[in-house]
Amino acid sequence: MKTIYLDNNATTRVAPEVVEAMIPYFGEFYGNPSSMHTFGGQVNANVQEARAKLADLLGASPDEILFTSCGTESDSTAIWAALRSQPDKRHIVTSRVEHPAVKNLGEYLAKNGYRTTFVPVDGKGRLDTDFLFKHLTEDTAIVSLMWANNETGVIFPIEELAQEIKSRGIVFHTDAVQAVGKIPIDLSKVKVDMLSLSGHKLHGPKGVGALYVRKGTRYSPFLIGGHQERGRRGGTENVASIIGLGKAAELGAAAIDEENHRVKALRDRLENALLEKIPSSMINGDPENRLPNTTSIAFEYVEGESILLMMNEHGICASSGSACTSGSLEPSHVLRAMGVPFTAAHGSIRFSLSIYNTEEEIDFIIETLPPIIERLRNMSPFWKKAGQQSA
Amino acid sequence: MKTIYLDNNATTRVAPEVVEAMIPYFGEFYGNPSSMHTFGGQVNANVQEARAKLADLLGASPDEILFTSCGTESDSTAIWAALRSQPDKRHIVTSRVEHPAVKNLGEYLAKNGYRTTFVPVDGKGRLDTDFLFKHLTEDTAIVSLMWANNETGVIFPIEELAQEIKSRGIVFHTDAVQAVGKIPIDLSKVKVDMLSLSGHKLHGPKGVGALYVRKGTRYSPFLIGGHQERGRRGGTENVASIIGLGKAAELGAAAIDEENHRVKALRDRLENALLEKIPSSMINGDPENRLPNTTSIAFEYVEGESILLMMNEHGICASSGSACTSGSLEPSHVLRAMGVPFTAAHGSIRFSLSIYNTEEEIDFIIETLPPIIERLRNMSPFWKKAGQQSA
Repeated sequence: MKTIYLDNNATTRVAPEVVEAMIPYFGEFYGNPSSMHTFGGQVNANVQEARAKLADLLGASPDEILFTSCGTESDSTAIWAALRSQPDKRHIVTSRVEHPAVKNLGEYLAKNGYRTTFVPVDGKGRLDTDFLFKHLTEDTAIVSLMWANNETGVIFPIEELAQEIKSRGIVFHTDAVQAVGKIPIDLSKVKVDMLSLSGHKLHGPKGVGALYVRKGTRYSPFLIGGHQERGRRGGTENVASIIGLGKAAELGAAAIDEENHRVKALRDRLENALLEKIPSSMINGDPENRLPNTTSIAFEYVEGESILLMMNEHGICASSGSACTSGSLEPSHVLRAMGVPFTAAHGSIRFSLSIYNTEEEIDFIIETLPPIIERLRNMSPFWKKAGQQSA
Repeated sequence: MKTIYLDNNATTRVAPEVVEAMIPYFGEFYGNPSSMHTFGGQVNANVQEARAKLADLLGASPDEILFTSCGTESDSTAIWAALRSQPDKRHIVTSRVEHPAVKNLGEYLAKNGYRTTFVPVDGKGRLDTDFLFKHLTEDTAIVSLMWANNETGVIFPIEELAQEIKSRGIVFHTDAVQAVGKIPIDLSKVKVDMLSLSGHKLHGPKGVGALYVRKGTRYSPFLIGGHQERGRRGGTENVASIIGLGKAAELGAAAIDEENHRVKALRDRLENALLEKIPSSMINGDPENRLPNTTSIAFEYVEGESILLMMNEHGICASSGSACTSGSLEPSHVLRAMGVPFTAAHGSIRFSLSIYNTEEEIDFIIETLPPIIERLRNMSPFWKKAGQQSA
């Protein structure tokens, strides 16, 4: 059975060019870039090239990029850096729809000597900016807001937020793990202080991420150890994966246009057809302001997990929320924060596309999914109670 | 020019079998192990197999192993886990010869609300255990001591230490980054609470490490985020590298015997010949209690960096200390803690072998190095001042 992979916000296929770029660093070039000898030192030059490629994708300078092991580490690094470098400030501000890497850290901090404000969103997942600005104080060390939501794809107005937050002298971090490679990002114009990204969300390998730290930003290391990353992150450089991330950044820059046209068109085709064919279905999140590759659709009165299992039997991979919160039977905290009714939140499916998806795959899903929903609804006591029959 | 690589304590060649095991996870099996669909879920089974292989190498149970991004992260995780889970205790104990991952964290903590005791070593790098036990208090949250030193190879008596420290109810962590794969380790007998290791020190890939956490040990996550690693470490699993580390553990278990016989014999051959051929040279550290692959030799009255550069011209890779502290002109903190005189510490070279080294390589170094030292000494004002001529 062919796999039809529409779970690219969970992880992506590693681009074959990325794998090819990485292989030599597991073989011939296995040296430690910090070594005195040429054998190790030559590898350092390649690490710096990768750094420059990633900086290019972001409109940043190479020495503003530090490599980490994942998006979660980047987020932790940013938040702890702001807190440790401003020990007198004890308040952090974030939103109710963040990835667990920020949400759970915010909750941890709230129980351990800090104060955390979680800014609400409206029914379309749009940030309540009035609430945000009202809650910034002298004590606020950092505001951390995602650039784009992993479940709904809703994009926060990071450029305007950056301007307003920085005008108050507060450090502004954005978790851009889902945005990088999908929408154009130019940090020479958008004045965030720190930005997190992850390799495996943009066709790079798992186990590598990066944190952008704008020149002049207060900083203190999270991973304390050796002198690597100019003293900003201890631990031997993950050379092969860094090279892979550099290549992925180069390919990502070239593919942004395709993401925003061909991929977006496939997403729209899928979404429109499903909404048309399946009654009592609706988009979660602001349709006007979304990542081009993502759609979260609520199919009322069915269980998301049942839909996933039945799609799985046809080789279709999607998700009911973040992979980082799976295993829990709670409906997604993102949809709850948006006030999506229980019966819709439980039946929500996220489809996240990539440049590797084809029209044939989309058409296959458009054929396959409506009868699955119908079958599940015919078994659902809630659907019957709601007085509806899809047949 | 052929590379003769004797810098295996900095990093190792990735075993070809390890690379082969990893490749499919960059290609066909790129799913996220936390996904609901079979495509992602199948990968999870392979991650668990890798965990079991690593547990086998250590005499541990698979659920006592959590994967991290490197040795440094494992060390940080262990120390912060002990501190966060015992918030009333503010004292940590470590040694003066630790890797920067522990040493620099200890120094950071000492400046940030904690008290750190650095236990001294004697001239042979042996731990002052009387000093250690005298400084344990009710307030001690954790003792963190390396199993084997990265620069000298000196082995601390971890089994006895574990018994004594645990009898006082104190959490005991060991940084075993240099020990794992080189000497037998059986955690069913050696009762440490936590143990750090790193993939790239045992012919696995860079960018992956592990922390052993004995069942029942107090724990609190360092990298807070998703539910991965059973809630003990957020961040998408670094699948390919975890699979690679599993394979490296399997190969490492099989190669322990070779490390302790053939590799040790090569090390001894190198060491004996250099000591015999080069006057005013001596071993740093206890020769009776060392890793089988490591020798640190002091060549008095010459600069280590000059020796490295001249060896480099012959393709010989070694190091003057830890790669994690290179770039600094200070002599190694390890040799200083041992009281090695300045003139010897500055001229110290670490050779660290692996199963990939051959007798021919060792003989080439035995031929090549003595004339290098002689030439450098003939240029050295210190050597002349010491009233000696090697010619």
